[in-house]
Amino acid sequence: MELLKRRILQDGRCFPGGILKVDSFINHQMDPILMKSIAVEFVRRFAGQDFNKVMTIEASGIAPAIMVGYLLELPVVFAKKKQPKTMENMLSTTVHSFTKDREYSVCISHDFLNPGDRILFIDDFLANGNAAQGCMDLIVQAGAELVGMGFIIEKSFQPGGKRLREKGVKVESLAIIESLDNCKIQIRD
Amino acid sequence: MELLKRRILQDGRCFPGGILKVDSFINHQMDPILMKSIAVEFVRRFAGQDFNKVMTIEASGIAPAIMVGYLLELPVVFAKKKQPKTMENMLSTTVHSFTKDREYSVCISHDFLNPGDRILFIDDFLANGNAAQGCMDLIVQAGAELVGMGFIIEKSFQPGGKRLREKGVKVESLAIIESLDNCKIQIRD
Repeated sequence: MELLKRRILQDGRCFPGGILKVDSFINHQMDPILMKSIAVEFVRRFAGQDFNKVMTIEASGIAPAIMVGYLLELPVVFAKKKQPKTMENMLSTTVHSFTKDREYSVCISHDFLNPGDRILFIDDFLANGNAAQGCMDLIVQAGAELVGMGFIIEKSFQPGGKRLREKGVKVESLAIIESLDNCKIQIRD
Repeated sequence: MELLKRRILQDGRCFPGGILKVDSFINHQMDPILMKSIAVEFVRRFAGQDFNKVMTIEASGIAPAIMVGYLLELPVVFAKKKQPKTMENMLSTTVHSFTKDREYSVCISHDFLNPGDRILFIDDFLANGNAAQGCMDLIVQAGAELVGMGFIIEKSFQPGGKRLREKGVKVESLAIIESLDNCKIQIRD
């Protein structure tokens, strides 16, 4: 997605340790017009798939997911990283965050993830893929079916994308970062 | 907003202790078409105001805020409830959650909240108003200006709305819940 790649090269910032910050337009401050274009591209990439619900995980997956749901007129559900004490019929799993070096639990109400649901999962980043695998686990627990996973940015030098594709998941990433070595952003053509 | 009121009466569920659950269409599973209509109504309510940025707080404020930003072609920034270790120029404040009975910190990067910014704040719920007041504090710290605050649902039997209006804030709530006594949802006409 050329528009996104150009924006990452223009406004993304690279820090030692393979950190790419896109907090001026994706995951802290957000550009809603870009977010709509991102959603259109997800619609295009998953045009051949049959799904009835969009799923994401709080917080920065919500903006692209709601835009995809808006374009396709489908409900959107987001997994939560804290267990609200009022959640009914909770499904939960544990995710290890490399970035934060800790475990956290991710949960969703079974009320909104059902057998028969065909899920398109959307998130902002795919790096080690642990949050994505946690959400896959919730989908399995619910008896729902995962149709595909779309990410705004994938870091191909981290193992998440390879792991998901080896499991047979249809993964679509709109910008694939091949390297951040020497704090230079290298995006796949 | 009639559409919203009807939906709350139809799909909202009331629990002892003044709890209103709208998790099937607002803050866990979300209806993106309703969310767009909600955003249109916010645009209408704040049509006379001059603002250049939309602010919200994660997680359930993000969906209505990004829709408002999309309609008006304005950037959207969300305050975070956890401090990412990579956040630069961080402003933070402490918020007491009555629902969860604990203190938490809310933060935002000064990079995206500047002197001269005129902010429309959007969130899903206004009850005690502590998260909203925390965000007001961040806006003051940044030297920005708060133009108005829009909430999808206000519980008028809790003190948040009164407190904000007493401070001179222009508050617009799209559905005002006057009582949840005896687990019956009473919405202001």
